[in-house]
Amino acid sequence: MLTLSLIGIGCGDPEQITLAAIRAINAADLVLIPRKGRQKSDLAELRRMICADVLTNEKTRIAEFDLPARDAGEADYHKGVDDWHDAVAATWSRAIERHLGGEGRVALLIWGDPSLYDSSLRIARRLNPMPAIDVIPGITSIQALCAAHALPLNEIGEPFLVTTGRRLREGGWPSGADTVVVMLDGGTAFESLDPAGIRIWWGAYLGMPDQIIVSGALADVGPRIAAVRQEARARHGWIMDSYVLKRNP
Amino acid sequence: MLTLSLIGIGCGDPEQITLAAIRAINAADLVLIPRKGRQKSDLAELRRMICADVLTNEKTRIAEFDLPARDAGEADYHKGVDDWHDAVAATWSRAIERHLGGEGRVALLIWGDPSLYDSSLRIARRLNPMPAIDVIPGITSIQALCAAHALPLNEIGEPFLVTTGRRLREGGWPSGADTVVVMLDGGTAFESLDPAGIRIWWGAYLGMPDQIIVSGALADVGPRIAAVRQEARARHGWIMDSYVLKRNP
Repeated sequence: MLTLSLIGIGCGDPEQITLAAIRAINAADLVLIPRKGRQKSDLAELRRMICADVLTNEKTRIAEFDLPARDAGEADYHKGVDDWHDAVAATWSRAIERHLGGEGRVALLIWGDPSLYDSSLRIARRLNPMPAIDVIPGITSIQALCAAHALPLNEIGEPFLVTTGRRLREGGWPSGADTVVVMLDGGTAFESLDPAGIRIWWGAYLGMPDQIIVSGALADVGPRIAAVRQEARARHGWIMDSYVLKRNP
Repeated sequence: MLTLSLIGIGCGDPEQITLAAIRAINAADLVLIPRKGRQKSDLAELRRMICADVLTNEKTRIAEFDLPARDAGEADYHKGVDDWHDAVAATWSRAIERHLGGEGRVALLIWGDPSLYDSSLRIARRLNPMPAIDVIPGITSIQALCAAHALPLNEIGEPFLVTTGRRLREGGWPSGADTVVVMLDGGTAFESLDPAGIRIWWGAYLGMPDQIIVSGALADVGPRIAAVRQEARARHGWIMDSYVLKRNP
């Protein structure tokens, strides 16, 4: 019997980890740490650091493995993701087989929370045989962003929408809410909006030593965020950022 | 100089607390624990238990105080909330003045996360003089719900909307998303929807020993959830529940 624990570890600050996550890491026979290539090496490093900090069970082994890259040339986005999930599942299976065999507890440390814009749950269901799955929630970048700005996410009794940079760029302000959280924006999708009446709370490297936050009227601070983002991305080689937009707040 | 730390403590499982929250509790001169009346006494008890578990700084004092109740008779919802926030801010000020005076660090332990359907940030800004505010994110019931069901919240690259039971009851399925999270539902607003093509993932007392979860096609499990909910509420004297709905998943 194989159990797979998907353990949310927060989004950059090692102290965002929960006691439940620490317990789950120490309950594992094997912690698998994916290597995702040069740009994401800071993320693998955070996982190593967390293991070094919290792992006290001497029987827990740590193994690293290389994740396949997604084929960015695939024109059909959903087919590209689907193929990639198959490839990642095969990689997980091989790593588990090699380091553990068919029985025991495997842990994967998940950036943020396993339920939010993360593929691990979908990939886990492609493993054959399918393991028992165990999810430990973690702090997301949405929460770290709001905390950094001391921002109440929702207005009183009002809804909010969480969406992607792609969606915002292609569809404009979404219907259904005057508060929008934008995740996975590879660029500055907020620049595609008419900024009148919109405020933005933006953050990058949230919870990390290099955290940057900027907020204000989108018309005023939009260009500054774009410039800060470009400069930071060039300096680090990568960027992870997200933002909240409010219309007529 | 007064600093107010709003510390997310998760939604019921004491192990959902983060290391950052433990550090912030121990950095406080005073932890204020609100008493909200008989129905919420389990919540005050969780806060006491967390303090007992994680507080190691002998200089940190704990003080309890009674929160005023919101006037449910006020016809204007926003005015009712506004008046209540003023009353709570006055209560906080008196408790801080009595137990600490004008200087030091005060901590409040916030159910879930301070940014999500919580009034603390708005109330803190009504304090006079306004303290420096410090926010520590916590695991929300949305995350605990998804973890309990091993449910990826969003579909791949798709948005989701977070809203209230009141909104769902009054407005039907909201525009903008095929995945909807419903919070603060005092009843069973999902019963106001045509259940065709809708799936539900419901949970109550998430992360607590009495956690209950039910999922399935809304047409099949909706009545069962309503019955389970009514029975559990009668037994406990209170209920906290939330759910995810997906249309044509």
